[in-house]
Amino acid sequence: MAEKHPTEIASIGEFGLIDRLTRDFAPVNSATVRGVGDDAAVIAPAGADEVSLCTTDLLMEGVDFDLTYFPLRHLGYKAVVEAVSDLLAMNGRAEQLLVSLGVSSKMSVEALEELYEGIRVACRELGVDLAGGDVKASVTGLAIHVTALGRVRREALTCRDGARLHDLICITGDLGAAYMGLHLLEREKRVLRDVQNPEPQFKGYEYLLQRYLKPRARRDVVEALAEEKIVPTAMIDLSDGLASDLLQICKASKCGARIYLDKIPIARQTTAFAEELHADPVVAALNGGEDHELLFTVPLAMQEQVMRMGGIDVIGHITAPEAGAMLVTPDGSEIRLKAQGFREEA
Amino acid sequence: MAEKHPTEIASIGEFGLIDRLTRDFAPVNSATVRGVGDDAAVIAPAGADEVSLCTTDLLMEGVDFDLTYFPLRHLGYKAVVEAVSDLLAMNGRAEQLLVSLGVSSKMSVEALEELYEGIRVACRELGVDLAGGDVKASVTGLAIHVTALGRVRREALTCRDGARLHDLICITGDLGAAYMGLHLLEREKRVLRDVQNPEPQFKGYEYLLQRYLKPRARRDVVEALAEEKIVPTAMIDLSDGLASDLLQICKASKCGARIYLDKIPIARQTTAFAEELHADPVVAALNGGEDHELLFTVPLAMQEQVMRMGGIDVIGHITAPEAGAMLVTPDGSEIRLKAQGFREEA
Repeated sequence: MAEKHPTEIASIGEFGLIDRLTRDFAPVNSATVRGVGDDAAVIAPAGADEVSLCTTDLLMEGVDFDLTYFPLRHLGYKAVVEAVSDLLAMNGRAEQLLVSLGVSSKMSVEALEELYEGIRVACRELGVDLAGGDVKASVTGLAIHVTALGRVRREALTCRDGARLHDLICITGDLGAAYMGLHLLEREKRVLRDVQNPEPQFKGYEYLLQRYLKPRARRDVVEALAEEKIVPTAMIDLSDGLASDLLQICKASKCGARIYLDKIPIARQTTAFAEELHADPVVAALNGGEDHELLFTVPLAMQEQVMRMGGIDVIGHITAPEAGAMLVTPDGSEIRLKAQGFREEA
Repeated sequence: MAEKHPTEIASIGEFGLIDRLTRDFAPVNSATVRGVGDDAAVIAPAGADEVSLCTTDLLMEGVDFDLTYFPLRHLGYKAVVEAVSDLLAMNGRAEQLLVSLGVSSKMSVEALEELYEGIRVACRELGVDLAGGDVKASVTGLAIHVTALGRVRREALTCRDGARLHDLICITGDLGAAYMGLHLLEREKRVLRDVQNPEPQFKGYEYLLQRYLKPRARRDVVEALAEEKIVPTAMIDLSDGLASDLLQICKASKCGARIYLDKIPIARQTTAFAEELHADPVVAALNGGEDHELLFTVPLAMQEQVMRMGGIDVIGHITAPEAGAMLVTPDGSEIRLKAQGFREEA
């Protein structure tokens, strides 16, 4: 293969790469309502008021997880949550799951059963059926691939491209804790590398570990929105960090955004551990990712209704596209939000 | 994690492993018509005479392909064919595709574009839309994961469990050529390892290379069956070799089988290269895999109709379960068919 000017992936970023790779694929089936470019593919079933949803997630050992401290049971659970969370972000519900594994022959059946136990628990909690999959050999590390299928009423379908001027920017839960949990685990691994009977120190930071090792899928939020008859104008799963994910909405909706630093919900333990590291917890919230909370926009008129729901914070509003996506600090200065690049390591 | 008696995967085999991992997942959604245990998951859309199909395939570098001789364009093409072939084996058609990649940062964008070019060509040929996916970093090798979605009329749906006593066992195309193509490539790689300007010798064996590097998805067969109004009683994609795949049908349909060695279609080049290696071409046909032809069963009464279609060979018939799955040699002796185990290398 002739490569005149090889381009490094890092130079165009993950999203740039996907854009570039997928730009020439025009759908030919009328049932393909929505393809590349959102959390899930949308496929119209024949003659119903619903559309089907399908999403895929690939987790690679050494990049997305480190088996030295990631219990396999939690890993299975988290793999399901990550896929299901993508369907929730379309305002849909997950119904089926297909799991493919690439595994080294060094792994025992019992180890894989632990992994599947986590998958089973998540499936039960989330009302999802395991509906297929594959186990293949791997000469490298463990690869976990999850495909989730689901559905959503046509009028409730929420994509990334529906945010409109003055819409409120809302987020569920708190941000940055998963990222801090990962840092905590990495620190203890480093410190205890040559210790005989390591006793990692996690006291006071249990919440951070839980957020990283066993994140929740926010099905409760999607159900609460339905109960309140609120259909967000746009929604995305917070998996890459607030900055990256908000920029995805801005790009798809062709708009700008203003969010306020002091409105971003950050848990006490996240702030405490950041202080211990002499780091800024806001950076964790903006760039950390893996929180699997939901970021969504609603019309300004719904402010009171959204606030009443509880557990949701309004952190800013949608602006004109030329304004860009800005973070406003307490002293009133504005910082332009940047997406993260292609990451070699988690 | 406590592991009292670690079981090696090899000791229970790939299918045993999948059985063991998935046995406790009872579907809870009525729409999950069929889950684990067939080529694709079957999902009922609301109020239609069709069901949706979804299948996933994971290809790992070093196991499923070797980039030293597998052109990326062909690899992309083959990845699509493998997934689509699973839907064809349900007697369905593929409509959407989701592709997830785990890639090393050492890979150039151009290399990945080559891969996607192959995906694009296959999508165009097969009338499938790329409808989603993901690109992740990988610290190990390239991982390609494909999810294919499609549909089939309810009354045309063909699973593995419908084979009945006296049904004819039919196969399309010829078998063992892909396996021989792989052996040819591996041989040339070994021979030319330390040669400065290697010129591999493939003359006379072009068909074997094509079968391994660029297999076809037999959409033509599924369309021809529909035209003839033939709905097979059972069908499977020939990806693991005739022995393994026929045993899958026997297991699901609770039946036995008798196939005749001299009826198994083997291409001239397959036989020629096997002779060069002092190997038995029948072994390649039985255990080789990756031919992506279709193995199906039809009622005995359809014999003439199937033969008239052309390109289809009747190689035996379904027997009672206690008879087992047997290969009958030309001298009349019977050999019990065995499935392959978990393979570390392709």
